[in-house]
Amino acid sequence: MAKIAVLGAGGWGTALASMLHQHARSVVLWARRPEFTQELLNLRENRDYLPGVPLPDDLPITSDLNQALDHVTLALVVVPSVGVQDLLEQLPRETPIVLCAKGLGAGGERLSQVALQMGFKTLGVLSGPNHAEEVSRGLPAATVVASEDEDFAVLAQSFLMTPSFRVYTSTDLVGVELGGVLKNVIAVAAGLVDGLKLGDNAKSALMTRALKEMQRYLSAQGADEDTVFGLSGLGDLIATCTSQHSRNRAAGEKLAQGQDPRQGGKAIEGIRSTYLLHEWAQTHHADLPIVEVVYQILENRITFSQGISILMGRKARSE
Amino acid sequence: MAKIAVLGAGGWGTALASMLHQHARSVVLWARRPEFTQELLNLRENRDYLPGVPLPDDLPITSDLNQALDHVTLALVVVPSVGVQDLLEQLPRETPIVLCAKGLGAGGERLSQVALQMGFKTLGVLSGPNHAEEVSRGLPAATVVASEDEDFAVLAQSFLMTPSFRVYTSTDLVGVELGGVLKNVIAVAAGLVDGLKLGDNAKSALMTRALKEMQRYLSAQGADEDTVFGLSGLGDLIATCTSQHSRNRAAGEKLAQGQDPRQGGKAIEGIRSTYLLHEWAQTHHADLPIVEVVYQILENRITFSQGISILMGRKARSE
Repeated sequence: MAKIAVLGAGGWGTALASMLHQHARSVVLWARRPEFTQELLNLRENRDYLPGVPLPDDLPITSDLNQALDHVTLALVVVPSVGVQDLLEQLPRETPIVLCAKGLGAGGERLSQVALQMGFKTLGVLSGPNHAEEVSRGLPAATVVASEDEDFAVLAQSFLMTPSFRVYTSTDLVGVELGGVLKNVIAVAAGLVDGLKLGDNAKSALMTRALKEMQRYLSAQGADEDTVFGLSGLGDLIATCTSQHSRNRAAGEKLAQGQDPRQGGKAIEGIRSTYLLHEWAQTHHADLPIVEVVYQILENRITFSQGISILMGRKARSE
Repeated sequence: MAKIAVLGAGGWGTALASMLHQHARSVVLWARRPEFTQELLNLRENRDYLPGVPLPDDLPITSDLNQALDHVTLALVVVPSVGVQDLLEQLPRETPIVLCAKGLGAGGERLSQVALQMGFKTLGVLSGPNHAEEVSRGLPAATVVASEDEDFAVLAQSFLMTPSFRVYTSTDLVGVELGGVLKNVIAVAAGLVDGLKLGDNAKSALMTRALKEMQRYLSAQGADEDTVFGLSGLGDLIATCTSQHSRNRAAGEKLAQGQDPRQGGKAIEGIRSTYLLHEWAQTHHADLPIVEVVYQILENRITFSQGISILMGRKARSE
């Protein structure tokens, strides 16, 4: 029998495992830490990452990776991007994997590049406007599974799709993957606008400009032209920049209020990606103005108002 | 001396007049009804449309159209679209006008087409993510002034631009004008999603799909390909669908709560445009699925859940 292993018990992993289990999939949820696994088993609730959502009584949860991977048909890799390579090291290379983190590898590579270099052959990514809190409550959502192997994308789609969770396929792995990375950086900038109480007009203008920056970067990386305007690009950008659920947007808001969002322990993909993309832009002499502003603010090299001036205050010109 | 007449004292007209006056423009605000003009003069506040925002003491306000138009260099037409033709009838045809309503003429034509047919020669439109409440408070915003006459667009830009209100020019009159029309219809649909509490994932997916619908419609009408992705398209779509300030979004929310948003007297451009675009699509055998869903819901021909199913529930496929 086909089996799905959800590797990582953060909010998104927990929501995916729970949703799939409720739709008659054979699924196991793997959590790295045994004591956290025990807490999940005892409470049947993920209080750290998905509080208030009851987990199904009979959803298998384990911290034994071999057990999770036994007879697995598909592994969803749902740990934060900083931990993806470590986890992949422990997986048999023939495991079909779908990468769900919206960040980069330690050298700034895409996570699917990391996996390919490690010898994984059957792989894809899952990316779209999917706040875990809403998906776990059964609210309708749409997403994209991308793989250069179209058959694998269609297989993953059939594994993941439910009446309320609509999965579209794409063969533009690069475009889908990078959309998810960039939107988290932009969400930090959007959170700055929120925290500084600059209003919805300013945030809309920032997001409009940001989509153009995403488009330029994705094209330069070989993505299809249209992908940035789909669910994994624009869709996720909107969901992340405008929702109270987004940790990346909230990080920007905290920054604007003088707090350091890096304290607290939970991964802020957008901040990590800011540094990695800044490095990349330096090396490749690329122009990523929003990434650069967020970087300069994180490094205290410019003030908020200088940053906003750069983002909003370019010279008047034709659009 | 150059003079700007702001014709229409709704929220946006009032905000524009007030902002321009505070940036040393010679400006006069015209309100149609003498008693409302008197109220504005007495209170120095537009309690009906922009409550809580004090108007400058020396901002000229009149309901005498001849006085407002005396020696005018630029007239901003800021009445609701349903009233634009009536107002234009009263204007000398040589008046340079910028149309600010985001709706259509009575026959479904663009408002600039209405003006052209009436004999106006020098004209443009102003459209972008500009909630009046925020602009009137001096928060940063960006917008687009479009005219097929580039010199006039640049002139209007110079009249309207302030440090916090960034005006970009465009020669794509059709694209800028229609973006503002369609986004109001989509905002009604987004408000439905809000009112039914379907969440941010669902709303992001709807908006992503909606932008594609806008793109198809604008292209069919001869707009430039990129305009829909700019401030007057995507930017305004985001601002309108995600903000508490939007009357069109709020109309959808009310609909979902069983109220009739058409009661109350204030113009809901998105509802009026839904009917006009529905007619247009019928005549031209065009496919505007979101317009059609909003129309069917307004006419009680389908239930909310049927409407949402149509919007969200298309067959699984590649994006």
